[in-house]
Amino acid sequence: MAAEKEITQINVDLSCDLRCEGCEKFYDCDRPEKQDMYRQGRMKLAKERISRIKKKLVVVGGKGGVGKSILCCNIAAGLAMKGRTVSVLDQNFDGPVVHKMLGMEGKKLGMTEHGIEPAVGVLDIQGITMGCVLEEDEVLTWFHDLRRNATEEFLCHVNYGERDYLLTDIPAGTSSDTVNILQYIPEADGVVVVTIPSDVSQGVAHKAIVVCQKANLPILGVVENMSGFVCPTCGEQSEPYQTGGGEKLAKDMGVEFLGKIPLDKKISISTQEGDPFVHKFPDIEASKNLMKIIDRIEEKIGWGK
Amino acid sequence: MAAEKEITQINVDLSCDLRCEGCEKFYDCDRPEKQDMYRQGRMKLAKERISRIKKKLVVVGGKGGVGKSILCCNIAAGLAMKGRTVSVLDQNFDGPVVHKMLGMEGKKLGMTEHGIEPAVGVLDIQGITMGCVLEEDEVLTWFHDLRRNATEEFLCHVNYGERDYLLTDIPAGTSSDTVNILQYIPEADGVVVVTIPSDVSQGVAHKAIVVCQKANLPILGVVENMSGFVCPTCGEQSEPYQTGGGEKLAKDMGVEFLGKIPLDKKISISTQEGDPFVHKFPDIEASKNLMKIIDRIEEKIGWGK
Repeated sequence: MAAEKEITQINVDLSCDLRCEGCEKFYDCDRPEKQDMYRQGRMKLAKERISRIKKKLVVVGGKGGVGKSILCCNIAAGLAMKGRTVSVLDQNFDGPVVHKMLGMEGKKLGMTEHGIEPAVGVLDIQGITMGCVLEEDEVLTWFHDLRRNATEEFLCHVNYGERDYLLTDIPAGTSSDTVNILQYIPEADGVVVVTIPSDVSQGVAHKAIVVCQKANLPILGVVENMSGFVCPTCGEQSEPYQTGGGEKLAKDMGVEFLGKIPLDKKISISTQEGDPFVHKFPDIEASKNLMKIIDRIEEKIGWGK
Repeated sequence: MAAEKEITQINVDLSCDLRCEGCEKFYDCDRPEKQDMYRQGRMKLAKERISRIKKKLVVVGGKGGVGKSILCCNIAAGLAMKGRTVSVLDQNFDGPVVHKMLGMEGKKLGMTEHGIEPAVGVLDIQGITMGCVLEEDEVLTWFHDLRRNATEEFLCHVNYGERDYLLTDIPAGTSSDTVNILQYIPEADGVVVVTIPSDVSQGVAHKAIVVCQKANLPILGVVENMSGFVCPTCGEQSEPYQTGGGEKLAKDMGVEFLGKIPLDKKISISTQEGDPFVHKFPDIEASKNLMKIIDRIEEKIGWGK
């Protein structure tokens, strides 16, 4: 066999051309020039546009299908049930689902002299999502620049008005869509990390936390979703996935464990009907746990203070 | 209220500069110039590199967390159990998991005079994955160009040798990573679509099928994952998610429904242990169903003919 050495990086070009906005190494770079982008152009405009929104939260998970969108929509609904005015920005351009989960299916974003008007769903929650732009058969194959354009549009040209909360649902991955939104809302109040109990999910969620830490955002804590399943026949709880992953992740990363949301068929039903479970089924364990998590989030970000 | 009109597209630049490789509208374009890229440069090199692999399959789902990677690794294992030599290319750069699922954790890709040497896992399956390049704490925030570079590296410079199968695991989304790999293996033998029963998953899987159809790849069929859960206490099957979504999707898209894989804690255990469930637990329903699906896939792509 030929002499072999281990590969520790793949041959991709990482040279610097001082175009910070589009740089893959943005958060690993300490050149002072990169701060200039926050003081000018569309980033400044975005900051002004969302300046009348009191609190900004980001929901991440790194891995797909762990329930980021469901929990983001249900945190939005839980906050609205507490009397807050809430907007949800769906950063998932390829496979948007927020419009379905918040009862906005079939509605479209509007355009007026004040800019893009959000769609409005259950509990008067505003939704800004490609799900209210595209038809079912329309597929986006945008690479980085167009994705950044779309993020800019959704922040710079939407007529949010005065709101209590902006929640951003970030899709799987740690690259384009994650970096774009973190760059545009550098003063977000905190990050909620969603994971499921399985071991492989933790490794990916770990990477998502690292990116948010690089962006200097406070990590509010970890929520473990799909945590156990209560059999509708015998009532016994079992674990379709491994357990305890969320608590382990939180401990490893030195962040708070916010709580568990068990698997429940009612979650799936409420999602399909476009009415968040915390609103439609307030008495199930998932809803009770989530309201406690929301209380804790508001406490941590200093709501009302 | 101000006069309002519906938005049907977001303001992003779609003008043409004849740089086909990096174009977001590649599959919607019918200019003859775009075919030139297949006849030269790295695309030609990629074609030569994988020319000694008999069959190429692609596993997609559009949505994250539906079990694309688990099923991709288990189809690989099932094929290996049938005596085939199999390589798995993990197109998920941000959150790779294939190395964990195939027992390659801690192994590294090697470099010899023949190029990049794949890692080798259970059943002698070759793995080409960033999971065998990065450390746990290392996070990629690559945008489009570097992602394309990495796809090129994994196809042009890997010493696959003679193999029966190359399976590519495509991450969530329909953009950069999906388009890159579909462009580089335009003669793939077919696409396996993975979905879960929930309604929102179908909309996203639908979009993934549309992209593969635009790339003129044959859709072999749809597999419904996480389809029902058997309670370990009472033995009754129940449905943590809605049911029937996979069959409905297949019918709507005019493609074959290949079968169902039920939720089973043993799947999660085998994944964590780096030994595919079809190999570790060949007698569970999930494994029996998967082997039938594999037989059908080999029949459809004309294996051995």
